[in-house]
Amino acid sequence: MAGKMAFQNTTANYFSMGSETLKVPMSLFSLNRQRLVKSLSDNPEVPNTGAVLLLEGGKQETRYCTPMEPVFRQESFFHWLFGVVEADWFGALEVESGRVTLFMPRLHPSFAMWSELHPPEHFAVKYNVDRVRYTDEIAQTLSDLKPSMLLLLNGVNVDSGKYCKEAVFTGKEKFNDVIDRKLLHPDITECRVIKTPEEIEVLRYVNQVSSKAHCEVMRVVKPGMMEYELESLFHHYCYGVGGCRHYAWIYTCGTGKNSAVLNYGNSGSPNNGVIKDGDMCLFDMGSEYYCYTSDITCSFPSNGRFTPTQKLVYNTVLRTNRSVMAAIKPGVDWIDMHHLAERELIAGLKGMGLLLGNLKDMMNANMASVFMPLSFGHLLGCDVLDVGGFPTGSRPTTGPMVLRINRTLQEGMCLTIEPGCYFVPYLLDKALSNPSQSCFINKDMLETLKGFGGVRIEDDIIVTSSGAELLTDVPRTVQEIEEWMQNGNKTWGKKDNKTIS
Amino acid sequence: MAGKMAFQNTTANYFSMGSETLKVPMSLFSLNRQRLVKSLSDNPEVPNTGAVLLLEGGKQETRYCTPMEPVFRQESFFHWLFGVVEADWFGALEVESGRVTLFMPRLHPSFAMWSELHPPEHFAVKYNVDRVRYTDEIAQTLSDLKPSMLLLLNGVNVDSGKYCKEAVFTGKEKFNDVIDRKLLHPDITECRVIKTPEEIEVLRYVNQVSSKAHCEVMRVVKPGMMEYELESLFHHYCYGVGGCRHYAWIYTCGTGKNSAVLNYGNSGSPNNGVIKDGDMCLFDMGSEYYCYTSDITCSFPSNGRFTPTQKLVYNTVLRTNRSVMAAIKPGVDWIDMHHLAERELIAGLKGMGLLLGNLKDMMNANMASVFMPLSFGHLLGCDVLDVGGFPTGSRPTTGPMVLRINRTLQEGMCLTIEPGCYFVPYLLDKALSNPSQSCFINKDMLETLKGFGGVRIEDDIIVTSSGAELLTDVPRTVQEIEEWMQNGNKTWGKKDNKTIS
Repeated sequence: MAGKMAFQNTTANYFSMGSETLKVPMSLFSLNRQRLVKSLSDNPEVPNTGAVLLLEGGKQETRYCTPMEPVFRQESFFHWLFGVVEADWFGALEVESGRVTLFMPRLHPSFAMWSELHPPEHFAVKYNVDRVRYTDEIAQTLSDLKPSMLLLLNGVNVDSGKYCKEAVFTGKEKFNDVIDRKLLHPDITECRVIKTPEEIEVLRYVNQVSSKAHCEVMRVVKPGMMEYELESLFHHYCYGVGGCRHYAWIYTCGTGKNSAVLNYGNSGSPNNGVIKDGDMCLFDMGSEYYCYTSDITCSFPSNGRFTPTQKLVYNTVLRTNRSVMAAIKPGVDWIDMHHLAERELIAGLKGMGLLLGNLKDMMNANMASVFMPLSFGHLLGCDVLDVGGFPTGSRPTTGPMVLRINRTLQEGMCLTIEPGCYFVPYLLDKALSNPSQSCFINKDMLETLKGFGGVRIEDDIIVTSSGAELLTDVPRTVQEIEEWMQNGNKTWGKKDNKTIS
Repeated sequence: MAGKMAFQNTTANYFSMGSETLKVPMSLFSLNRQRLVKSLSDNPEVPNTGAVLLLEGGKQETRYCTPMEPVFRQESFFHWLFGVVEADWFGALEVESGRVTLFMPRLHPSFAMWSELHPPEHFAVKYNVDRVRYTDEIAQTLSDLKPSMLLLLNGVNVDSGKYCKEAVFTGKEKFNDVIDRKLLHPDITECRVIKTPEEIEVLRYVNQVSSKAHCEVMRVVKPGMMEYELESLFHHYCYGVGGCRHYAWIYTCGTGKNSAVLNYGNSGSPNNGVIKDGDMCLFDMGSEYYCYTSDITCSFPSNGRFTPTQKLVYNTVLRTNRSVMAAIKPGVDWIDMHHLAERELIAGLKGMGLLLGNLKDMMNANMASVFMPLSFGHLLGCDVLDVGGFPTGSRPTTGPMVLRINRTLQEGMCLTIEPGCYFVPYLLDKALSNPSQSCFINKDMLETLKGFGGVRIEDDIIVTSSGAELLTDVPRTVQEIEEWMQNGNKTWGKKDNKTIS
C-alpha cells in the first residue's frame, strides 16, 4: 500500500532528563506507529482508505475532592504511540498515510503564570509529528478527514479486568456510524509485545539504572535499619542519578518473615519493619524512564553473610532462574518454561531434604505451587505487567499457580524471569493439611523454615534470535553477593551482561 | 447531653514509622471525633438521639486499565476522623454515644499469600475503636442502629470545585428516608480548620523533617546539577530519615526563569532544568507524615552568594513575610493581612526603585498583583490546601490576586505565610500595556529583571493565643543563607523556632 510509510525520518528532538541520562529519540514513536499502521493495514477488516484511529491520553487527576495533583504519568497505550508527557491530550493517526495529528488542551492565556505556555507549533517539533491542534478541534479535524472507519481503543486488561478508557470528545456522536471498538485494541496490544531496537535501548537503560540502585542498596543495608530507608535510597538513586521519577509499582522491601508476603509494601504494611541481623531481604524494586519500566528483585542476607540454610534455598532459586534463562529462545512455549521452573524448584527442594519422593509424583501433586504460588515471569514494557500475556484474551488454568503469560516466545519480547521460594504460613498449612501434598514434606525441616520468609531472584531479559539478553546487572551468586556486601568488591561482570543462550 | 463523651481514654496504639520518627497516638482521632460529635450535637438540625454518620474511606485505585497500584493515600476527611491507613474501609460514628464502628473489606483467606491478613479484633485494637466489622455488614449494622438520621459527607471543595465522594454501600436505598447530605460537610470542615494539640504535634514534626530536608538541599546544591536531583534528595531525606512516604503535592524546584513559573515541576516541566551559576532557586517542597502536611519554600542563589539585585528582591519578600507574621493573631482578618502584604511588597519594590509613585495609588492600581498574583497563604492540615478557607462556600473577588482564605484568624489554625515576588513575563507584559499600571513601573529597571525568575519565602505557622508559632526552621536572612551555603554554619537558631508575636 503505497504512501503508508511516509514517515518523517529526521528526528529533531529527544526526551532526556539531562546529559547524564538517556536521550530517547522521537523516532522511537514513529517506528511504533509505523508498525501499528502496518498491522492495521494487513487487517482485512480495516478499510484500505480513510481509516483513522483516535486515542485519548491520560488525564491529570486530583487526589479525591482536593486540588492536589499527583505527578502525572501518561497512559501507556498513548505513550507507546505518541510519547507525549503532558496530560489531557488526544492523538489521531491516519492509517493510510501515517499522518499524525495531536490535540492539546487550549488554556487561557492567563494560565501563563502557572505554566510556561507553548503554541501547537512548539509541540509539533517536540514530538516530531505532522501537526498539533487543540482538543476543541477534534470533531472538526475528524470531519475534514471524512473517516471511513474511526478506530477507538476499547478492550480489557486481562491482568486487572479493567477496560481502557475509550476516547471521549465533544461531537463524538457524529461519528457513531463509523466507530469501530474491536479492531484497534488487539492490534496495538500485539505490537506492544514485540520491542523495537529503540525501545530495547530504553529498557536497557532503565534496567541499568535500577541495577545500580539495587547494588547501592546492598552496599549500605545493615541490620537495625528500617526497610523503607532502602526503598527511599533506591528511589533516590534512580531519580537523582538516573532521572527516573516514577516508581513502576509499589516496592516490596520485605525482610525476615515479611519477605514471604508477596504484596508487602502497600499502605497496610509500608516497608516499616526493622531489619534484623540474620534476616533474608527480598527487595523487589524497579523504576521507570519515559514510561519504560524495569522490575528487579534481589534477595540477600541483611548482614551480608548467608547461613547454610539461606544458601541452600537461595541456590535452589538461582538454579531455577538460570535453567529457565538458558532455555529461553524464540519458539519456546511459556508453559514449558513454567514446568521447567517447577521441576527445577522441586528438584532443588528435594536436594535440600525438604521434599521427599519421586519428582514426577510431586509435579503431579502441584508441590511447586506450595512454595512458588506465582508464575515466575511476565511481560515488561510500558507497564510492569505489560499487555499481551494472554493473546486469547483469557487466563488459562494450569493448576494452582497464578500464570501471567501464555504464549510462544518471540524475538523482541521483554520478560521477567523471577522464580521464588516462599515459606508462606497459609500455603504451608494448607499443604500440610492436604494428604496428597503433606506426604512429600519433611515436616521437621519445614518447621525450621516457617519464619524464613522468601527468596526471589528476578532478572529482566530480551528474547534474542538465539536466546536471551540479560538486562539486569547485579551480584547473583552467593559469592558475588557476599564479596559485594562485605568488601564492596564487584566480582560479577561483563560476562553476565551479554547475550546468554 | 450525657453519654456523648464516653470515649475510650486509654490509647493502646500509635502510628509510627520506627523509633526515630514521631509516635502518633490514636487518641488524636478520638479527640477529633469528640469535637465533631460536640459540633453535631450543638446543631439543632441534628436529632438528639439516633443520628449516625457514615464515611467511606479512599479506594485503592490502579493506574488506568492496568493492575499497577499507586501507593495508597487515605482520603483526608476519613483520615482525620479515623486514622485508618488501609484502603477500601468505611467508618460509622454514632453521634449520641460516640461509638465507632469501622468496616474493613472481607478478603478471601487465599489472599494471605499477598498480604498478612488480620481479623477485625486486630484492627479494633490498632485503631482504638469500639468495633470493626466487614464492609458487607454495613447495611445490617446500620439497620440494627435504627438511625433517626444518617449523615453522609457531601460537599464541594472550594479550591478544586470537586465534590467529595458520598459513601456508597449495598443496601443504601433502605436508608433513603433518613439520609442527610447537608449537615456533615460544613461541620467536619470547620472542625478540621482548628488543630488540636495532638495534631499540632504532628504538624511540628513534619515541618521539622521538611525543614531539615530543605537545609540539606541548600547545603549540597551547586550550579551544574539538575533541578530534580534536589527534589530527589529532599524526598529521600523526608522519607529515609523522617518516614514521610508521600509528597504533599508536586514539588517545584525552579531555578533561573523557571522560578517564576508557579506550577513548575509538573509533567510538562518536570524540574529538569540545569541549575546555572548565579540563578535564583525557588524550591517549594513539603512532605506528609501520617497524612499531615508541610509546605515550605526556600529561595536562595544557586552558588550561595546573593548578587545586590537578588538581595534587594529577597529582602523585600522577607520583610513582607516577617511583617505579616508579626501581625498574625486571633481576631485578625485575613483580608487585612492580604492588604498588609500588598503594601509591604509595593513599598519594598518602591524602595528598590522598581516602582515609582504614591503607595496608595499603587495599591489602588493593584500593582502588588503584578508581582504577587497569588495570595500569600492558605490553610494547612491533612491537605496542603486545607479545607475551610472559605466558610461561606465561595471564593470572594478582591482584585486580581487569587485568594485562598477569607476568614478571621483563630487560635489553632495552621497557615502558610508565603509572600513572593515573581517576574512573570506574561504578567509584566500585561502591566506594561495597561496605562494605569505601566505609569508606576521603572521600565529600564524592569528590563534587567525580566529573566530574574522569582522569590518566595514560605513558612508554616500555628495561630497561638497571642500571635503565631513558627513551625519552619530554615535559614532565612541573607546572612544566614550565605553562612549556611558557603560554610555550613548554622547561624539561625532556637529563637526562630519559638513563638513569635
